Amino acid sequence: MARGKKLYEGKAKVLYEGPEPGTLIQYFKDDATAFNAEKKDTIQGKGALNNILSEHIMLGLAGIGMPTHFIRRLNMREQLIHKVEIVPLEIIVRNVAAGSFSKMLGIEEGTPLPRPIVEFCYKEDKLGDPLVSEEHILALDWASQHDIDDMREMALRVNDYLSGMMYAVGIKLIDFKIEVGRQFHQDMQRLVLADEISPDSCRLWDIETNQKLDKDVFRRDLGSLTDAYSEVARRLGVLPKGGTGSGPKLVE
Amino acid sequence: MARGKKLYEGKAKVLYEGPEPGTLIQYFKDDATAFNAEKKDTIQGKGALNNILSEHIMLGLAGIGMPTHFIRRLNMREQLIHKVEIVPLEIIVRNVAAGSFSKMLGIEEGTPLPRPIVEFCYKEDKLGDPLVSEEHILALDWASQHDIDDMREMALRVNDYLSGMMYAVGIKLIDFKIEVGRQFHQDMQRLVLADEISPDSCRLWDIETNQKLDKDVFRRDLGSLTDAYSEVARRLGVLPKGGTGSGPKLVE
Repeated sequence: MARGKKLYEGKAKVLYEGPEPGTLIQYFKDDATAFNAEKKDTIQGKGALNNILSEHIMLGLAGIGMPTHFIRRLNMREQLIHKVEIVPLEIIVRNVAAGSFSKMLGIEEGTPLPRPIVEFCYKEDKLGDPLVSEEHILALDWASQHDIDDMREMALRVNDYLSGMMYAVGIKLIDFKIEVGRQFHQDMQRLVLADEISPDSCRLWDIETNQKLDKDVFRRDLGSLTDAYSEVARRLGVLPKGGTGSGPKLVE
Repeated sequence: MARGKKLYEGKAKVLYEGPEPGTLIQYFKDDATAFNAEKKDTIQGKGALNNILSEHIMLGLAGIGMPTHFIRRLNMREQLIHKVEIVPLEIIVRNVAAGSFSKMLGIEEGTPLPRPIVEFCYKEDKLGDPLVSEEHILALDWASQHDIDDMREMALRVNDYLSGMMYAVGIKLIDFKIEVGRQFHQDMQRLVLADEISPDSCRLWDIETNQKLDKDVFRRDLGSLTDAYSEVARRLGVLPKGGTGSGPKLVE
Protein backbone atom coordinates (compact mmCIF):
# COMPACT_ATOMS: atom_id res chain seq x y z
CA MET A 1 0.00 0.00 0.00
CA ALA A 2 1.35 3.42 -0.92
CA ARG A 3 2.33 5.42 2.11
CA GLY A 4 1.46 9.09 2.36
CA LYS A 5 3.48 11.82 3.99
CA LYS A 6 5.47 11.06 7.13
CA LEU A 7 3.57 12.66 9.99
CA TYR A 8 5.55 11.62 13.04
CA GLU A 9 8.63 9.63 13.90
CA GLY A 10 9.05 8.26 17.41
CA LYS A 11 11.65 6.03 18.99
CA ALA A 12 10.16 2.75 17.79
CA LYS A 13 7.53 3.68 15.21
CA VAL A 14 6.78 6.02 12.33
CA LEU A 15 3.32 7.28 11.36
CA TYR A 16 2.43 8.02 7.74
CA GLU A 17 -0.72 9.40 6.19
CA GLY A 18 -3.06 6.52 5.35
CA PRO A 19 -4.80 5.68 2.08
CA GLU A 20 -8.15 7.09 3.23
CA PRO A 21 -9.13 10.08 5.38
CA GLY A 22 -9.11 9.17 9.04
CA THR A 23 -6.48 6.45 8.62
CA LEU A 24 -2.75 6.25 9.24
CA ILE A 25 -0.05 3.70 8.56
CA GLN A 26 1.94 2.71 11.62
CA TYR A 27 5.43 1.45 10.73
CA PHE A 28 7.40 -0.58 13.31
CA LYS A 29 11.11 0.19 13.37
CA ASP A 30 13.87 -2.13 14.54
CA ASP A 31 15.24 0.60 16.79
CA ALA A 32 15.35 -0.15 20.48
CA THR A 33 15.82 2.58 23.05
CA ALA A 34 15.77 2.64 26.83
CA PHE A 35 16.24 5.08 29.69
CA ASN A 36 14.61 7.83 27.63
CA ALA A 37 16.82 7.04 24.61
CA GLU A 38 20.13 7.19 26.51
CA LYS A 39 20.64 3.58 25.43
CA LYS A 40 20.07 2.80 21.74
CA ASP A 41 20.50 -0.08 19.32
CA THR A 42 19.02 -1.55 16.15
CA ILE A 43 17.70 -5.07 16.59
CA GLN A 44 16.83 -6.88 13.41
CA GLY A 45 13.38 -8.45 13.56
CA LYS A 46 12.06 -6.51 16.57
CA GLY A 47 9.73 -4.32 14.52
CA ALA A 48 8.15 -7.27 12.75
CA LEU A 49 7.68 -9.17 16.00
CA ASN A 50 5.99 -6.22 17.71
CA ASN A 51 3.81 -5.68 14.66
CA ILE A 52 2.41 -9.24 14.69
CA LEU A 53 2.20 -9.43 18.48
CA SER A 54 0.40 -6.11 18.76
CA GLU A 55 -1.96 -7.15 15.95
CA HIS A 56 -2.75 -10.41 17.77
CA ILE A 57 -3.40 -8.67 21.09
CA MET A 58 -5.43 -5.78 19.62
CA LEU A 59 -7.61 -8.23 17.67
CA GLY A 60 -8.17 -10.27 20.81
CA LEU A 61 -9.14 -7.17 22.77
CA ALA A 62 -11.48 -6.04 19.98
CA GLY A 63 -13.10 -9.45 20.39
CA ILE A 64 -14.13 -8.57 23.96
CA GLY A 65 -15.54 -5.24 22.83
CA MET A 66 -12.56 -3.00 23.53
CA PRO A 67 -12.39 -0.18 20.97
CA THR A 68 -8.92 0.07 19.41
CA HIS A 69 -7.26 2.08 16.66
CA PHE A 70 -6.21 -1.12 14.86
CA ILE A 71 -7.75 -1.83 11.44
CA ARG A 72 -5.50 -4.47 9.89
CA ARG A 73 -1.91 -5.48 9.44
CA LEU A 74 -0.60 -4.59 5.97
CA ASN A 75 2.72 -6.44 5.92
CA MET A 76 5.55 -7.47 8.24
CA ARG A 77 6.32 -3.86 9.19
CA GLU A 78 3.11 -1.89 8.85
CA GLN A 79 -0.42 -1.78 10.07
CA LEU A 80 -3.36 0.36 9.07
CA ILE A 81 -4.87 2.25 11.99
CA HIS A 82 -7.54 4.84 12.67
CA LYS A 83 -6.22 8.35 13.05
CA VAL A 84 -6.70 9.43 16.66
CA GLU A 85 -5.64 12.32 18.86
CA ILE A 86 -3.38 10.74 21.46
CA VAL A 87 -4.21 11.63 25.06
CA PRO A 88 -0.83 12.81 26.41
CA LEU A 89 -0.71 10.14 29.11
CA GLU A 90 0.96 6.78 29.48
CA ILE A 91 -1.34 4.54 31.48
CA ILE A 92 0.53 1.86 33.39
CA VAL A 93 -0.98 -1.13 35.19
CA ARG A 94 1.22 -2.98 37.67
CA ASN A 95 0.52 -6.42 39.12
CA VAL A 96 3.98 -7.06 40.53
CA ALA A 97 6.55 -4.47 41.63
CA ALA A 98 9.28 -3.87 39.03
CA GLY A 99 11.28 -1.17 37.28
CA SER A 100 10.68 2.46 38.19
CA PHE A 101 7.97 1.54 40.69
CA SER A 102 10.36 -0.65 42.68
CA LYS A 103 12.98 2.07 42.62
CA MET A 104 10.59 4.86 43.53
CA LEU A 105 9.00 3.08 46.48
CA GLY A 106 11.82 0.80 47.60
CA ILE A 107 9.70 -2.30 47.03
CA GLU A 108 11.74 -5.25 45.86
CA GLU A 109 11.25 -6.27 42.24
CA GLY A 110 9.03 -9.33 42.05
CA THR A 111 6.85 -8.40 45.04
CA PRO A 112 3.19 -9.08 44.16
CA LEU A 113 1.00 -6.02 44.73
CA PRO A 114 -2.17 -6.29 46.84
CA ARG A 115 -4.21 -5.21 43.83
CA PRO A 116 -3.43 -3.93 40.32
CA ILE A 117 -2.16 -0.35 40.53
CA VAL A 118 -3.00 2.07 37.72
CA GLU A 119 -0.55 4.92 37.19
CA PHE A 120 -0.75 7.88 34.82
CA CYS A 121 2.43 9.44 33.47
CA TYR A 122 2.57 12.63 31.46
CA LYS A 123 3.78 11.63 27.99
CA GLU A 124 6.62 14.04 27.37
CA ASP A 125 10.05 12.63 26.55
CA LYS A 126 11.81 15.88 27.46
CA LEU A 127 10.54 15.49 31.01
CA GLY A 128 11.12 11.73 31.21
CA ASP A 129 7.39 10.88 31.23
CA PRO A 130 6.81 11.85 34.88
CA LEU A 131 4.23 10.19 37.10
CA VAL A 132 1.29 12.54 37.64
CA SER A 133 -1.84 12.52 39.75
CA GLU A 134 -5.46 13.02 38.70
CA GLU A 135 -5.17 16.51 40.11
CA HIS A 136 -2.55 17.39 37.48
CA ILE A 137 -4.49 15.76 34.67
CA LEU A 138 -7.66 17.67 35.54
CA ALA A 139 -6.03 20.99 36.31
CA LEU A 140 -3.93 20.96 33.13
CA ASP A 141 -6.90 19.77 31.09
CA TRP A 142 -5.29 16.68 29.56
CA ALA A 143 -8.46 14.70 30.23
CA SER A 144 -11.77 15.05 32.05
CA GLN A 145 -12.74 13.06 35.14
CA HIS A 146 -15.01 11.01 32.89
CA ASP A 147 -12.12 10.27 30.53
CA ILE A 148 -9.87 9.32 33.46
CA ASP A 149 -12.50 6.90 34.74
CA ASP A 150 -12.87 5.43 31.24
CA MET A 151 -9.12 5.08 30.80
CA ARG A 152 -8.74 3.38 34.17
CA GLU A 153 -11.53 0.95 33.31
CA MET A 154 -10.02 0.22 29.89
CA ALA A 155 -6.60 -0.36 31.46
CA LEU A 156 -8.02 -2.79 34.04
CA ARG A 157 -9.93 -4.71 31.37
CA VAL A 158 -6.77 -4.98 29.28
CA ASN A 159 -5.01 -6.20 32.42
CA ASP A 160 -7.52 -8.98 33.05
CA TYR A 161 -7.59 -10.09 29.42
CA LEU A 162 -3.86 -9.94 28.88
CA SER A 163 -3.19 -11.67 32.22
CA GLY A 164 -5.35 -14.56 31.06
CA MET A 165 -3.75 -14.68 27.64
CA MET A 166 -0.25 -14.78 29.07
CA TYR A 167 -1.12 -17.21 31.87
CA ALA A 168 -2.40 -19.64 29.24
CA VAL A 169 1.08 -19.80 27.75
CA GLY A 170 3.05 -19.89 30.98
CA ILE A 171 3.84 -16.18 31.23
CA LYS A 172 3.19 -13.81 34.13
CA LEU A 173 2.06 -10.29 33.22
CA ILE A 174 4.07 -8.09 35.59
CA ASP A 175 3.04 -4.69 34.23
CA PHE A 176 2.29 -2.91 30.97
CA LYS A 177 1.67 0.49 29.46
CA ILE A 178 -1.10 1.58 27.15
CA GLU A 179 -1.89 4.77 25.31
CA VAL A 180 -5.37 5.96 24.52
CA GLY A 181 -6.56 8.17 21.69
CA ARG A 182 -9.64 10.18 20.85
CA GLN A 183 -11.32 9.02 17.68
CA PHE A 184 -13.57 11.62 16.10
CA HIS A 185 -16.47 10.91 13.80
CA GLN A 186 -18.79 13.77 12.81
CA ASP A 187 -19.76 15.35 16.13
CA MET A 188 -18.86 12.31 18.20
CA GLN A 189 -15.72 11.22 19.91
CA ARG A 190 -14.73 8.09 21.75
CA LEU A 191 -11.63 6.84 23.51
CA VAL A 192 -9.86 3.93 21.87
CA LEU A 193 -6.80 1.89 22.70
CA ALA A 194 -3.93 3.20 20.57
CA ASP A 195 -0.17 2.78 20.04
CA GLU A 196 0.87 -0.87 20.50
CA ILE A 197 0.77 -3.66 23.05
CA SER A 198 3.89 -5.78 22.71
CA PRO A 199 6.91 -6.97 24.70
CA ASP A 200 8.20 -3.41 24.22
CA SER A 201 5.35 -2.13 26.37
CA CYS A 202 4.85 -5.03 28.83
CA ARG A 203 6.92 -6.84 31.41
CA LEU A 204 6.50 -10.58 30.82
CA TRP A 205 8.17 -13.20 33.00
CA ASP A 206 8.15 -16.94 32.50
CA ILE A 207 5.88 -18.35 35.23
CA GLU A 208 8.28 -21.14 36.19
CA THR A 209 11.70 -19.53 35.89
CA ASN A 210 10.93 -15.76 36.05
CA GLN A 211 12.99 -15.44 32.86
CA LYS A 212 12.36 -12.03 31.33
CA LEU A 213 10.68 -12.09 27.92
CA ASP A 214 10.37 -8.34 27.39
CA LYS A 215 12.33 -5.17 26.78
CA ASP A 216 14.22 -5.55 30.06
CA VAL A 217 16.34 -8.08 28.11
CA PHE A 218 17.60 -5.07 26.16
CA ARG A 219 17.59 -2.57 29.04
CA ARG A 220 19.65 -4.90 31.23
CA ASP A 221 21.73 -6.75 28.62
CA LEU A 222 20.21 -10.15 29.42
CA GLY A 223 20.66 -11.76 26.00
CA SER A 224 18.93 -11.70 22.63
CA LEU A 225 15.86 -9.48 22.49
CA THR A 226 14.51 -11.14 19.35
CA ASP A 227 14.90 -14.56 20.98
CA ALA A 228 12.79 -13.33 23.92
CA TYR A 229 10.10 -11.72 21.73
CA SER A 230 10.09 -14.74 19.40
CA GLU A 231 9.48 -16.98 22.40
CA VAL A 232 6.39 -14.94 23.31
CA ALA A 233 5.20 -15.04 19.69
CA ARG A 234 5.89 -18.77 19.43
CA ARG A 235 3.94 -19.54 22.61
CA LEU A 236 1.01 -17.45 21.40
CA GLY A 237 1.10 -19.25 18.07
CA VAL A 238 1.68 -16.14 15.96
CA LEU A 239 5.26 -16.70 14.82
CA PRO A 240 5.21 -17.21 11.06
CA LYS A 241 6.25 -20.77 10.21
CA GLY A 242 9.99 -20.95 9.82
CA GLY A 243 10.48 -17.56 11.44
CA THR A 244 13.01 -17.40 14.25
CA GLY A 245 12.84 -13.75 15.06
CA SER A 246 16.21 -13.04 13.55
CA GLY A 247 15.64 -15.20 10.48
CA PRO A 248 14.75 -13.88 7.05
CA LYS A 249 10.99 -14.36 7.44
CA LEU A 250 10.74 -11.47 9.85
CA VAL A 251 13.04 -9.13 8.02
CA GLU A 252 12.01 -7.20 4.94
CA MET B 1 -6.72 -37.28 52.70
CA ALA B 2 -9.50 -38.86 54.74
CA ARG B 3 -12.89 -37.69 53.60
CA GLY B 4 -15.55 -36.82 56.11
CA LYS B 5 -19.28 -37.34 55.81
CA LYS B 6 -20.91 -36.96 52.44
CA LEU B 7 -22.81 -33.66 52.54
CA TYR B 8 -24.20 -33.35 49.04
CA GLU B 9 -24.25 -35.25 45.79
CA GLY B 10 -25.00 -33.44 42.58
CA LYS B 11 -25.01 -34.52 38.97
CA ALA B 12 -21.28 -34.15 38.40
CA LYS B 13 -19.76 -33.67 41.86
CA VAL B 14 -19.92 -34.85 45.46
CA LEU B 15 -19.10 -32.70 48.48
CA TYR B 16 -17.62 -34.24 51.63
CA GLU B 17 -16.74 -32.71 54.97
CA GLY B 18 -13.17 -31.45 54.84
CA PRO B 19 -10.28 -32.14 57.21
CA GLU B 20 -10.63 -28.79 58.99
CA PRO B 21 -13.61 -26.63 59.94
CA GLY B 22 -14.61 -24.37 57.09
CA THR B 23 -13.31 -26.75 54.42
CA LEU B 24 -14.92 -29.29 52.12
CA ILE B 25 -13.64 -31.86 49.68
CA GLN B 26 -15.08 -31.53 46.18
CA TYR B 27 -15.05 -34.85 44.29
CA PHE B 28 -15.43 -34.81 40.48
CA LYS B 29 -17.53 -37.68 39.13
CA ASP B 30 -17.35 -39.14 35.64
CA ASP B 31 -21.10 -38.78 35.24
CA ALA B 32 -22.30 -36.58 32.43
CA THR B 33 -25.85 -35.33 32.27
CA ALA B 34 -27.66 -32.94 29.98
CA PHE B 35 -31.11 -31.48 29.46
CA ASN B 36 -31.68 -31.44 33.22
CA ALA B 37 -30.50 -35.07 33.56
CA GLU B 38 -32.81 -36.48 30.88
CA LYS B 39 -29.66 -37.62 29.08
CA LYS B 40 -27.06 -39.46 31.19
CA ASP B 41 -23.82 -41.35 30.73
CA THR B 42 -20.59 -42.18 32.50
CA ILE B 43 -17.51 -40.93 30.71
CA GLN B 44 -14.22 -42.25 32.02
CA GLY B 45 -11.71 -39.48 32.61
CA LYS B 46 -14.14 -36.56 32.56
CA GLY B 47 -13.98 -35.95 36.31
CA ALA B 48 -10.19 -35.87 36.38
CA LEU B 49 -10.05 -33.50 33.39
CA ASN B 50 -12.52 -31.08 34.95
CA ASN B 51 -10.65 -31.26 38.25
CA ILE B 52 -7.32 -30.18 36.72
CA LEU B 53 -8.87 -27.66 34.33
CA SER B 54 -10.91 -26.03 37.07
CA GLU B 55 -7.84 -25.94 39.32
CA HIS B 56 -5.84 -24.24 36.56
CA ILE B 57 -8.51 -21.63 35.86
CA MET B 58 -9.29 -20.92 39.54
CA LEU B 59 -5.59 -20.46 40.30
CA GLY B 60 -5.25 -18.11 37.36
CA LEU B 61 -8.25 -16.07 38.51
CA ALA B 62 -6.90 -15.94 42.06
CA GLY B 63 -3.78 -14.48 40.50
CA ILE B 64 -5.75 -11.44 39.30
CA GLY B 65 -7.28 -10.97 42.74
CA MET B 66 -10.55 -12.84 42.25
CA PRO B 67 -11.62 -14.52 45.50
CA THR B 68 -12.43 -18.21 44.95
CA HIS B 69 -13.36 -21.19 47.09
CA PHE B 70 -10.41 -23.19 45.76
CA ILE B 71 -7.61 -24.11 48.20
CA ARG B 72 -5.69 -26.90 46.45
CA ARG B 73 -6.09 -30.02 44.38
CA LEU B 74 -5.65 -33.17 46.46
CA ASN B 75 -5.50 -35.84 43.75
CA MET B 76 -6.89 -36.62 40.30
CA ARG B 77 -10.48 -36.57 41.56
CA GLU B 78 -10.60 -34.27 44.54
CA GLN B 79 -9.89 -30.72 45.54
CA LEU B 80 -9.94 -29.01 48.91
CA ILE B 81 -12.23 -25.97 48.97
CA HIS B 82 -13.54 -23.41 51.42
CA LYS B 83 -17.01 -24.15 52.69
CA VAL B 84 -19.38 -21.52 51.35
CA GLU B 85 -23.11 -20.93 51.23
CA ILE B 86 -23.98 -21.12 47.56
CA VAL B 87 -26.08 -18.22 46.26
CA PRO B 88 -28.96 -20.02 44.49
CA LEU B 89 -28.17 -18.49 41.12
CA GLU B 90 -26.36 -19.60 38.02
CA ILE B 91 -24.65 -16.60 36.50
CA ILE B 92 -24.19 -16.92 32.77
CA VAL B 93 -22.09 -14.67 30.54
CA ARG B 94 -22.67 -14.87 26.79
CA ASN B 95 -20.39 -13.48 24.10
CA VAL B 96 -21.92 -15.32 21.17
CA ALA B 97 -25.46 -16.63 20.82
CA ALA B 98 -25.77 -20.36 21.50
CA GLY B 99 -27.85 -22.98 23.28
CA SER B 100 -30.91 -21.89 25.25
CA PHE B 101 -30.30 -18.23 24.43
CA SER B 102 -30.47 -18.88 20.68
CA LYS B 103 -33.61 -20.93 21.13
CA MET B 104 -35.30 -18.45 23.43
CA LEU B 105 -34.66 -15.40 21.27
CA GLY B 106 -34.52 -16.92 17.81
CA ILE B 107 -30.97 -15.69 17.27
CA GLU B 108 -28.90 -18.06 15.20
CA GLU B 109 -26.19 -19.95 17.07
CA GLY B 110 -22.83 -18.37 16.38
CA THR B 111 -24.10 -14.79 16.14
CA PRO B 112 -21.73 -12.48 18.03
CA LEU B 113 -23.54 -10.37 20.62
CA PRO B 114 -23.10 -6.57 20.65
CA ARG B 115 -21.71 -6.83 24.20
CA PRO B 116 -21.38 -9.59 26.80
CA ILE B 117 -24.78 -10.41 28.26
CA VAL B 118 -25.02 -11.47 31.90
CA GLU B 119 -27.97 -13.67 32.81
CA PHE B 120 -29.10 -14.93 36.19
CA CYS B 121 -30.93 -18.25 36.46
CA TYR B 122 -32.55 -19.55 39.61
CA LYS B 123 -30.60 -22.67 40.56
CA GLU B 124 -33.33 -25.26 41.05
CA ASP B 125 -33.16 -28.48 39.06
CA LYS B 126 -36.84 -29.24 39.63
CA LEU B 127 -37.72 -26.03 37.79
CA GLY B 128 -35.08 -26.42 35.09
CA ASP B 129 -32.96 -23.48 36.35
CA PRO B 130 -35.23 -20.76 34.95
CA LEU B 131 -33.95 -17.39 33.78
CA VAL B 132 -34.92 -14.70 36.31
CA SER B 133 -34.68 -10.93 36.48
CA GLU B 134 -33.15 -8.76 39.20
CA GLU B 135 -36.69 -8.05 40.33
CA HIS B 136 -37.15 -11.73 41.25
CA ILE B 137 -33.78 -11.97 42.93
CA LEU B 138 -34.45 -8.93 45.10
CA ALA B 139 -38.09 -9.66 45.87
CA LEU B 140 -37.37 -13.29 46.82
CA ASP B 141 -34.29 -12.25 48.80
CA TRP B 142 -31.75 -14.50 47.08
CA ALA B 143 -29.28 -11.63 46.96
CA SER B 144 -29.12 -7.89 47.65
CA GLN B 145 -28.63 -5.25 44.96
CA HIS B 146 -25.07 -4.89 46.20
CA ASP B 147 -24.49 -8.64 45.81
CA ILE B 148 -26.02 -8.61 42.33
CA ASP B 149 -23.69 -5.78 41.31
CA ASP B 150 -20.73 -7.69 42.77
CA MET B 151 -21.72 -10.91 41.00
CA ARG B 152 -22.12 -9.14 37.68
CA GLU B 153 -18.71 -7.51 38.07
CA MET B 154 -17.11 -10.85 39.02
CA ALA B 155 -18.72 -12.55 36.05
CA LEU B 156 -17.48 -9.88 33.63
CA ARG B 157 -13.95 -10.07 35.03
CA VAL B 158 -13.98 -13.86 34.65
CA ASN B 159 -15.22 -13.30 31.09
CA ASP B 160 -12.34 -10.99 30.20
CA TYR B 161 -9.72 -13.21 31.82
CA LEU B 162 -11.04 -16.47 30.45
CA SER B 163 -11.54 -14.95 26.98
CA GLY B 164 -7.86 -14.03 26.96
CA MET B 165 -6.76 -17.40 28.27
CA MET B 166 -8.73 -19.26 25.62
CA TYR B 167 -7.82 -16.89 22.78
CA ALA B 168 -4.16 -17.54 23.56
CA VAL B 169 -4.67 -21.21 22.71
CA GLY B 170 -6.91 -20.75 19.68
CA ILE B 171 -10.25 -21.14 21.43
CA LYS B 172 -13.24 -18.78 21.40
CA LEU B 173 -15.14 -18.41 24.66
CA ILE B 174 -18.78 -18.48 23.58
CA ASP B 175 -20.41 -18.48 27.01
CA PHE B 176 -19.97 -19.87 30.49
CA LYS B 177 -21.69 -20.28 33.83
CA ILE B 178 -20.36 -19.53 37.28
CA GLU B 179 -21.70 -20.00 40.77
CA VAL B 180 -20.89 -17.74 43.67
CA GLY B 181 -20.82 -18.54 47.39
CA ARG B 182 -20.81 -16.59 50.61
CA GLN B 183 -17.73 -17.28 52.68
CA PHE B 184 -18.15 -16.46 56.37
CA HIS B 185 -15.36 -15.63 58.76
CA GLN B 186 -16.22 -14.38 62.23
CA ASP B 187 -18.68 -11.54 61.63
CA MET B 188 -17.61 -10.99 58.04
CA GLN B 189 -18.79 -12.40 54.78
CA ARG B 190 -17.59 -12.09 51.22
CA LEU B 191 -18.65 -13.43 47.85
CA VAL B 192 -16.27 -15.90 46.24
CA LEU B 193 -16.27 -17.80 42.99
CA ALA B 194 -17.40 -21.37 43.75
CA ASP B 195 -18.31 -24.65 42.01
CA GLU B 196 -16.06 -25.24 38.98
CA ILE B 197 -15.02 -23.62 35.71
CA SER B 198 -14.42 -26.30 33.11
CA PRO B 199 -15.62 -27.45 29.69
CA ASP B 200 -18.70 -28.71 31.56
CA SER B 201 -19.61 -25.11 32.38
CA CYS B 202 -18.29 -23.25 29.29
CA ARG B 203 -18.88 -23.29 25.57
CA LEU B 204 -15.51 -23.39 23.85
CA TRP B 205 -15.14 -23.37 20.07
CA ASP B 206 -11.95 -23.74 18.11
CA ILE B 207 -11.24 -20.29 16.62
CA GLU B 208 -10.45 -21.63 13.14
CA THR B 209 -12.91 -24.47 12.68
CA ASN B 210 -15.65 -23.70 15.25
CA GLN B 211 -15.20 -27.30 16.45
CA LYS B 212 -16.91 -27.70 19.82
CA LEU B 213 -14.57 -28.50 22.72
CA ASP B 214 -17.17 -28.54 25.51
CA LYS B 215 -20.15 -30.39 26.88
CA ASP B 216 -22.13 -29.84 23.69
CA VAL B 217 -20.05 -32.75 22.33
CA PHE B 218 -21.99 -34.90 24.78
CA ARG B 219 -25.32 -33.08 24.53
CA ARG B 220 -25.33 -33.35 20.74
CA ASP B 221 -23.44 -36.65 20.23
CA LEU B 222 -20.57 -35.02 18.37
CA GLY B 223 -17.84 -37.49 19.29
CA SER B 224 -15.61 -38.24 22.26
CA LEU B 225 -16.10 -35.89 25.20
CA THR B 226 -12.77 -36.80 26.79
CA ASP B 227 -10.98 -36.16 23.50
CA ALA B 228 -12.52 -32.67 23.43
CA TYR B 229 -11.70 -31.88 27.08
CA SER B 230 -8.21 -33.37 26.69
CA GLU B 231 -7.64 -31.07 23.73
CA VAL B 232 -8.47 -28.04 25.91
CA ALA B 233 -6.20 -29.35 28.69
CA ARG B 234 -3.41 -30.12 26.24
CA ARG B 235 -3.54 -26.64 24.70
CA LEU B 236 -3.48 -25.05 28.15
CA GLY B 237 -0.52 -27.23 29.08
CA VAL B 238 -2.20 -28.94 32.04
CA LEU B 239 -2.63 -32.45 30.69
CA PRO B 240 -0.45 -34.80 32.75
CA LYS B 241 2.33 -36.20 30.62
CA GLY B 242 1.20 -39.38 28.95
CA GLY B 243 -2.44 -38.68 29.80
CA THR B 244 -4.86 -38.88 26.91
CA GLY B 245 -8.08 -38.20 28.70
CA SER B 246 -9.28 -41.75 28.45
CA GLY B 247 -5.91 -43.29 29.33
CA PRO B 248 -4.98 -44.70 32.72
CA LYS B 249 -3.26 -41.52 33.97
CA LEU B 250 -6.58 -39.74 34.35
CA VAL B 251 -8.51 -42.63 35.87
CA GLU B 252 -8.18 -43.71 39.48
